[in-house]
Amino acid sequence: MKIKLTISYNGKNYVGWQKQNNGKSVQEEIENALLILLGEKVEVFASGRTDAGVHAICQVAHFESNSEKLETNFAKKNKSSCFEKLVVALNANLPSDIRVEKANKVRKNFHARFDVKKKTYEYLMSWKQTPFNLGLVGLFRKKPCIEAMKNASRFLIGTHNFSSFASSKTQAKDFIRTIYKINITKKTNCIKIEICGNGFLYNMVRIIVGTLYDVGIGKIQPEKIKEILEKKNRIYAGETAPAEGLYLKKVKY
Amino acid sequence: MKIKLTISYNGKNYVGWQKQNNGKSVQEEIENALLILLGEKVEVFASGRTDAGVHAICQVAHFESNSEKLETNFAKKNKSSCFEKLVVALNANLPSDIRVEKANKVRKNFHARFDVKKKTYEYLMSWKQTPFNLGLVGLFRKKPCIEAMKNASRFLIGTHNFSSFASSKTQAKDFIRTIYKINITKKTNCIKIEICGNGFLYNMVRIIVGTLYDVGIGKIQPEKIKEILEKKNRIYAGETAPAEGLYLKKVKY
Repeated sequence: MKIKLTISYNGKNYVGWQKQNNGKSVQEEIENALLILLGEKVEVFASGRTDAGVHAICQVAHFESNSEKLETNFAKKNKSSCFEKLVVALNANLPSDIRVEKANKVRKNFHARFDVKKKTYEYLMSWKQTPFNLGLVGLFRKKPCIEAMKNASRFLIGTHNFSSFASSKTQAKDFIRTIYKINITKKTNCIKIEICGNGFLYNMVRIIVGTLYDVGIGKIQPEKIKEILEKKNRIYAGETAPAEGLYLKKVKY
Repeated sequence: MKIKLTISYNGKNYVGWQKQNNGKSVQEEIENALLILLGEKVEVFASGRTDAGVHAICQVAHFESNSEKLETNFAKKNKSSCFEKLVVALNANLPSDIRVEKANKVRKNFHARFDVKKKTYEYLMSWKQTPFNLGLVGLFRKKPCIEAMKNASRFLIGTHNFSSFASSKTQAKDFIRTIYKINITKKTNCIKIEICGNGFLYNMVRIIVGTLYDVGIGKIQPEKIKEILEKKNRIYAGETAPAEGLYLKKVKY
């Protein structure tokens, strides 16, 4: 049986989604909780990795299990595709900075990563550290001009080769991605940048945010974005924005 | 010279404002930072204590010092009442969950506690624990009805004897207080309750919030608030709401 999980987490205390030798990962925590509940080692596949410090409001993942306990103990009565009791049991066995929001049975060939149609990320950019936003926003030196950032963002919409906006560590071979929408809005002491696309290269959202910030403080002219895209070289874009401001907000299949 | 400080802090890691033997206090942290900067032990007086876990967006405090360093090192040039350099230096010596927002010279007889005219508290009540609101909201079992809470809050406005809404541990002798305003608004996954008054008894805001919650879940009828006030006995009001949802928002002199 294949189960789809919808998960939120605060990335602060984790090395990222994926299991690693150098610290706690979100994947590991969830697999450990499933081991306790199902008495079986399963592997949990997410829609994509998130880096250390990056948060998720709505990460999607799947796992396969033939454990009889699954149906007997954790399915909702009269609605066998809904595993609401699994949600309660998982949360009881997870640290409070990881929450499972939903658990549903899905078709056998569903894949949390390969079936993604659209992803939406949100970035919170702040220039004021408060006692309440630590680890929840990306901190920048100055307050940027939101209008300049909006102007610049228009050049990123559409299908482009995003080589200039990918980490040099990427293993991707195809750099063509489509960005459907970028919304930039003013909040108290911060700016929210929402980016929706069909997929993102390694660090792509954070490099876009860092480059929009440079536009916002007048270091790069908005029209320059077009040129940066054409250069197809990472060195022309801005710095990678801090991980703490990034939230995986929505995954669409 | 007397200096007035405006301070924000996250109460999560502190035993409260006031110095105690059982853990770190906000007062102690600020006094330690001042000792480093001024080379002098000073006592810092706040507008009032806040309990363990309670936050402040705008706590006000004062201290007196005749240290020559104060004027020489920390006052703003051409505006000797503004100690903006003291703000920067204090924040460099404080943990990041305590921030000094302002430092100003005030009249010799100013007192942060005795001169208070009005105080505003804010309470964030939530029924959904997320990875992002831990320690920042008070968690309750059910989602309450905001309209019932609004109806009930009207009976608290004005000048009353608030004995029913004070902790039995209070040392107050006069239980008469005036509440000027209660605003209750809906936010994402939480309700914000803002209470402004001329002063508050020990735990008064949290007991008011706990009682409004009981109204919101139908345990107490809104009109019952009038009776509870008249009883002048703590046992008739609701439970004390959790500290983590409480923010000291504004102090007016």
